[in-house]
Amino acid sequence: MNQLILSKAGSDVQMIPEVANHLISSGGKRLRPMLTLAAASLFDYRGENHVKLATSVEFMHTATLLHDDVVDESDLRRGKSTARMIWGNQASVLVGDFLLGQAFRMMVDVGSLDALDVLSSAACVIAEGEVLQLSVAKNMETTEDDYLSVIRAKTAALFAAAAEVGPIVAEAGRSGRNALKSYGMNLGLAFQLVDDALDYGGKAADLGKNVGDDFREGKITLPVILAYRRGTEDERAFWRDAIEAGNSSDANLEKALGLITKYGTLSDTIGRAVHYGTIARDALAPLPDTVWKSALMEVIDFCIERVN
Amino acid sequence: MNQLILSKAGSDVQMIPEVANHLISSGGKRLRPMLTLAAASLFDYRGENHVKLATSVEFMHTATLLHDDVVDESDLRRGKSTARMIWGNQASVLVGDFLLGQAFRMMVDVGSLDALDVLSSAACVIAEGEVLQLSVAKNMETTEDDYLSVIRAKTAALFAAAAEVGPIVAEAGRSGRNALKSYGMNLGLAFQLVDDALDYGGKAADLGKNVGDDFREGKITLPVILAYRRGTEDERAFWRDAIEAGNSSDANLEKALGLITKYGTLSDTIGRAVHYGTIARDALAPLPDTVWKSALMEVIDFCIERVN
Repeated sequence: MNQLILSKAGSDVQMIPEVANHLISSGGKRLRPMLTLAAASLFDYRGENHVKLATSVEFMHTATLLHDDVVDESDLRRGKSTARMIWGNQASVLVGDFLLGQAFRMMVDVGSLDALDVLSSAACVIAEGEVLQLSVAKNMETTEDDYLSVIRAKTAALFAAAAEVGPIVAEAGRSGRNALKSYGMNLGLAFQLVDDALDYGGKAADLGKNVGDDFREGKITLPVILAYRRGTEDERAFWRDAIEAGNSSDANLEKALGLITKYGTLSDTIGRAVHYGTIARDALAPLPDTVWKSALMEVIDFCIERVN
Repeated sequence: MNQLILSKAGSDVQMIPEVANHLISSGGKRLRPMLTLAAASLFDYRGENHVKLATSVEFMHTATLLHDDVVDESDLRRGKSTARMIWGNQASVLVGDFLLGQAFRMMVDVGSLDALDVLSSAACVIAEGEVLQLSVAKNMETTEDDYLSVIRAKTAALFAAAAEVGPIVAEAGRSGRNALKSYGMNLGLAFQLVDDALDYGGKAADLGKNVGDDFREGKITLPVILAYRRGTEDERAFWRDAIEAGNSSDANLEKALGLITKYGTLSDTIGRAVHYGTIARDALAPLPDTVWKSALMEVIDFCIERVN
């Protein structure tokens, strides 16, 4: 799969592999495509098409990251300068479009209309989730349910699709597809919850991005939603000033971290992640015990425990 | 098709139809999707799937425009403020991604792997063409051949794909596909040549954009390539200063227009467009004379004559 990723990021237009490989070779976890590989193997798939679909999934993810960096005006990703800082917003947008096109070409090459349906639907839902995130940004009245709608669309939908195309390519039945889709969806929710906790609780070196990036961008994530709702009137006024009016100085970030600690909202965010992790685990429970099932179970622990 | 375009631009996320309809309802010519409809009818297609593929084509085009406006930092498109000026770069990038996702969903819904292959390949080539355009920008050594490679990829490839999926959905044979692909490719080249001439020779009110936008962006198009190559040493130094060093003041635009007139490069650019138009015409020649063939022939004249 890594070989295919590198070869399909190639182009006669020299800037494309340069920009694409900057991100592709930056130590990403390859978490989503590994779901596809493991999920296909779980249903005893013996062909080669799961590698193509896994590569498609990774390219969809990479395209999203390239576009996200433009949307968020980020300067750091996985501990390196973002592509847009080196090559400009233009290259980030267009190389993202190229990778999305390559993703679809590989899916077409596999020839499964079911896989195409699942992955193209995910592409729409991801974009909807990103737009939804824009429209709730800097709005402190966002509820936990609003937030869940955002992360379900922008993150969990691709995890779900990545897992579901495994049984599809293996020509497993509907119950296998549903099990893996549910596993992926809930794993994705857990993953994003932990990610959002890490943004306030991690170290920059481990994160590969800056602590408090979400705070400075006015992104509304669960640690903040809970601290706002549990806070006093004065504290709520502080959050509105920091997030809605954009007064996100370092001093205000310090104060925000203090309130997050005061109300224990990081550990409660992780608590929610554990909840979804448990659902993901139960989704796989009926399937036969194999090394692939164990691997998929371990991924749940990996996603939740990286917080420590 | 217009109904389907409006309905598929819908989403529960309110900002999506707002941004999408701003562009979709801004008086675009629907030229590319009409090629799909006419090309399918030319091969006597009687179903409904050509409408879905035509809508996919228009969405691919609209997504490209939304991303282009971000890439070019444009403020005016079809005589209206660009989406990025009203809703920001973020919404332009993400709604473009959404429309591209919807385009693929509709293709999947049609279920033709051949059509999916043609259109997903076009999506890659378009992005490659846009990146290629970035890498030749502000380089006065760009040759006419380099320029042709750019416009073949960024513009003509979608015209070719739009026309080719007509015979595909009508289950016509290989020679029909090749004829329409060749027609579309050459029509697309003619279209872009005229577009690039209009940028120096049109009126803002007719263009829906500002005269000289390409000049100010340092885009290398044929009217400039020819004027540079035919110019004196002093004139070439002027072009390098204006385009490569970015001294694109109104006075310099006036001077550039003077040189373009001096060397007759607008009419020679149109001459090249006429050449490709003739190839497009001959590509269709062997096909039976029907109202659909006449319509496709008229499109060639329309594309070339809008210069007057």
